[in-house]
This record gives sequence, C-alpha cells and structure tokens, in this order.
Amino acid sequence: MIVTIAGAGHMARGIGNRTLAGGHTLRLYDRTRAKADELAASLGQAASGADVAAVDEGAVAGSDVVVLALPFPAGREVAAAWAGALEGKVVVDISNPVDFSTFDSLVVEPGTSAAEQIAAAAPGARVVKAFNTTFAGPLVTGEVAGRPLDVFVAGDDEAAKRTVSELVSSAGLRPLDVGPLRRARELEGFQFLHMASQERLGLNWSSGIAILP
Amino acid sequence: MIVTIAGAGHMARGIGNRTLAGGHTLRLYDRTRAKADELAASLGQAASGADVAAVDEGAVAGSDVVVLALPFPAGREVAAAWAGALEGKVVVDISNPVDFSTFDSLVVEPGTSAAEQIAAAAPGARVVKAFNTTFAGPLVTGEVAGRPLDVFVAGDDEAAKRTVSELVSSAGLRPLDVGPLRRARELEGFQFLHMASQERLGLNWSSGIAILP
Repeated sequence: MIVTIAGAGHMARGIGNRTLAGGHTLRLYDRTRAKADELAASLGQAASGADVAAVDEGAVAGSDVVVLALPFPAGREVAAAWAGALEGKVVVDISNPVDFSTFDSLVVEPGTSAAEQIAAAAPGARVVKAFNTTFAGPLVTGEVAGRPLDVFVAGDDEAAKRTVSELVSSAGLRPLDVGPLRRARELEGFQFLHMASQERLGLNWSSGIAILP
Repeated sequence: MIVTIAGAGHMARGIGNRTLAGGHTLRLYDRTRAKADELAASLGQAASGADVAAVDEGAVAGSDVVVLALPFPAGREVAAAWAGALEGKVVVDISNPVDFSTFDSLVVEPGTSAAEQIAAAAPGARVVKAFNTTFAGPLVTGEVAGRPLDVFVAGDDEAAKRTVSELVSSAGLRPLDVGPLRRARELEGFQFLHMASQERLGLNWSSGIAILP
C-alpha cells in the first residue's frame, strides 16, 4: 500500500521504518519540506531498494493510508485543513494529548479523546487510532522483550481497521483490535500513565504495553 | 503480615492464594460467613501449613492490610460501613466499575475512579489501588506467558504503597508503582478495555496487561 506520513519526527521515523519493513511505498510530508527530505533520505539509506520519498501535501490524494504522526493538537489542525482530501481515506491518529506542563492529566476533557476530536475535524475521514502506545525506540526493531510490539487499534470503520491491522502485521507487529474509536479514551489514558511512570519505574522510553495471552 | 480479604469470590481466591504463597497470615471475611468458611477450608487444603481462617468483621482491627475483593459499588459500601475500623489501615481496592449492561463505559463519572470514591467513603483509610488488572485465573500461578504478573499499584500514601508492593513481591508478582491514587482512573479504564476486548481478541480471561521493559 501507499502510506503517507505527516510529520518528520521520531514517531514518523519509527512508523516509516516499520512501513518500509512491510514492503510498502512510503511518502513523507512535513510543512518544513527539508525535514521530510532529510527523513526520506535517512530511511532510504537504511533500507536498500525502499520506495520512499518526500512529498507535498497534494500527495495525500493518492494514499491508501495517511498517518498523522503529529502531536496533539497539531494533528487535529492538519486534519481540519485537509478535511476535503481526507474524505474516504484511512487516517491514523497516533497522538497522546498529554498535558506536559503537569504530567498529571490529558489536555482533552475526561470522557473524550484526541482521536474523536480528530475524527470530528475531518468528518469524511475513516479515522483509526493506532501506534499511540508504541514508543519510537522499540519501533526501530518492532520488538520489546523479544516479542513483537502490540499495536492497539480502535475505530468505527471495520474495513479501515482491517487495512491498518494489515499494515501493522506486515510490519512485524501484532495488531489488537480493541473496538470502536471511543476506546481511544482508554488507550490515550493508559499511555499517559505509561509515559508519566517512566522515571519512577526505571524505564527509558523503550518499554511497551502488552496484553500477554 | 496479616492480610484480611473482604469477599469470597474468584478474586478473593486468587489474591488469597498469592497471599499464602507469600507466607502471610490470611483472614477471610464474607457477610455470608459460610462462604468465608468454605474458601478458607479450600485454600488451607491447597497450601499445607498455611495460616488461613474465616473471621467476622471485627478482625479488620488486627490486620496489616485489608483487601476489598468486592465489586463496585459493594466495596464502597463496605468501606463506608467500616470507616472507623479502617482508620489508618492499608486498604486495597481491586475493583473495576464496569457498566456490565453495556460493556461500553464505566459506571463512575469520567475523570474519577472507584478507588477515589472508596477513599472518600473511608477518609482515614490509606487506600491503594492494586490487583485491578489481574484476572483471577492467572493469579492461581501468578504468571502469564511465563512472566510474573504485573500488578499496578497507585496511591497517595507512599508507605502504604510500599507495604502493598512488598505483599505483591512476596507473592511472586511484579509491583509497578504508577503514582498517585488518581492514576486509578487510567488503570480502571484500561482494564475495562481489556475486559471488553476478551472475545474480540480470542482471549479467555486468562490474559494479563504488562509493561515489557
């Protein structure tokens, strides 16, 4: 599939790396074009034969999956600005709307989620929550403690969730469909707890949340 | 330590079993005394030399840790009724206030938690959230997928959290201190998601939530 990632930070790198590992076509967009160019060159160098390139925002139209690898609320702003182009598209929200000034709550109201706000900003998009509990570090290899990373997937469009789950599986990760988009509330909440506990638990932003069977 | 468990259901059995595995003294209370008697006999039979007995509610006074192994809001009602006796005691809330009629939300308001409500019902108690993400099944052996079960511990009283963490460690499980009691919101939310996803994920109430390092 053709996967376009908006953003060129650590998470874009991690998900981009996995996308190429899965044999997909990768397109990278950043409002600072040079950052997208740089990430495309870096990922291309690491994966020989990979189809990866930086693009302008018009490329969204030709994508099978658009990943908003942006912090909240920047992802919501992009979703709103691109609402027309995102009509009918599978759009992945990976964000965690953590209040980093206090590290004690989310910036979205209790009982809602960044994913639902993004879906509201682009009403025609088929929004799927995924990759919000996977740190950038473990995405490099796709493993943590010798196990494929668990990627929790939530959304209201079953076909869109299947597409994202296929992307996740092909990338060597384990997709876990946890239900409708409103389950993003619990996913964002628990990842906030996971992030806020890193220091106390002696972790180093390389841990992963897993459901062990 | 002397651990008193209120309740005689599956979770009381699982936590009781682990408490005895840790070499502690176990007291079991149920408002139907015969149920406590039956569980005490069953646990005593399984662990030779174990110090386990059914008790009346007066036994709470002599306990180091009181575990409310009761569904919500029954646990809150017991906390309120015992508020005097629980003054200064380490009290463990294990509940998940899931709306089982819809399996789509919790019965506590977003932005609060069963643990915080229980703390409010017994203001002198040193309430710790723990064992809410561990199903009764895996508590029998204390393991899931060959790893010691993760037990998430949240509370506002550091000494009380240390006591509960010691109990957890001695029982062969891994305590993870995730911060203040209000983190119970995220713990209860994610366990709700875990419960609601059992069928979809092909699990059988024997899975465990883990933070893999």
